[in-house]
Amino acid sequence: MSSEKPILNSFYRSSCSWRVRTCLNWKGIYYEYCPVNLLEGAQKKEEYSEINPYKFVPTLKIDGNVLTQSVEILEYLEETRPEKPLLPTDPYKRALVRSLVQVITGDIQPLQNMKVLQYIESTGGNKNEFAIYCITRGLKELRSNLRKHLINIVLAMKLLWQIFVFCRRFIMQTDLELT
Amino acid sequence: MSSEKPILNSFYRSSCSWRVRTCLNWKGIYYEYCPVNLLEGAQKKEEYSEINPYKFVPTLKIDGNVLTQSVEILEYLEETRPEKPLLPTDPYKRALVRSLVQVITGDIQPLQNMKVLQYIESTGGNKNEFAIYCITRGLKELRSNLRKHLINIVLAMKLLWQIFVFCRRFIMQTDLELT
Repeated sequence: MSSEKPILNSFYRSSCSWRVRTCLNWKGIYYEYCPVNLLEGAQKKEEYSEINPYKFVPTLKIDGNVLTQSVEILEYLEETRPEKPLLPTDPYKRALVRSLVQVITGDIQPLQNMKVLQYIESTGGNKNEFAIYCITRGLKELRSNLRKHLINIVLAMKLLWQIFVFCRRFIMQTDLELT
Repeated sequence: MSSEKPILNSFYRSSCSWRVRTCLNWKGIYYEYCPVNLLEGAQKKEEYSEINPYKFVPTLKIDGNVLTQSVEILEYLEETRPEKPLLPTDPYKRALVRSLVQVITGDIQPLQNMKVLQYIESTGGNKNEFAIYCITRGLKELRSNLRKHLINIVLAMKLLWQIFVFCRRFIMQTDLELT
């Protein structure tokens, strides 16, 4: 591991960046914060896209490497810095945590991120209705699985808290029906 | 590990199930195949949703456990059956593979799966245009990252092959512009 301080490219409202910040803080890893303002299109600038070809946030420079995609960053930090673990040790419980993570990072977040909602709007659709539909569906999935497996899981709870705060933007605009 | 033969609930056209089948075959794990016809709504039946609260495929019963969500199944199989690995040993290369996997399983697949496309259609949108938009965007991301990191990775190549076959359904209906 390099002794250089990690650098995180992040945007305050990005839920993907948020989960990386949470993990860095949880593990007590000191890092330098470099904001990338997505609303101003800073992620599309050549100097940034050379670092992150996806033109997304977050990007984490650590141990001489450049990492993108939030869950992969979490898995990397877990493998290289196992103190204060995010995952249980039992393979089945690890799979359960990862399945909850996947609901948020696969079935909720990508469906209501900025690029998709901008596309929905540009084709005459209602971006808020679409976001609410996706979040509601995802939260129902989470609820049904949490009812099935009541396990003590640090990562899942952190992510759940995060997604609820993130969803607030949409929930405040209308009723979210989970029944 | 249990000596019982694993059971996979799968649908032939589901790309999530496909990647689990590929992994089971790659690792030489014999399993029983139980089809779940998504087009006929078999995933919504009570007997199935009791096993898989997400009402998705795949579901893998293995070692006395029930696993859902494809990537988590792959990670579980990798942890419990490390022979014929899917991931490299170096943490940074593992992160690179996982970032490619995430583009497919987070940024492409969830955006053009059946439920989302049905929703787009039900609100008067053009489901094919939406699917093509998402696939094109995702493939551009993959291309830019593959150009950056030319590494020898079994899992990523298998997934790439899979997604290209899956995309054929949409590509055949119109031109896919990657330029």
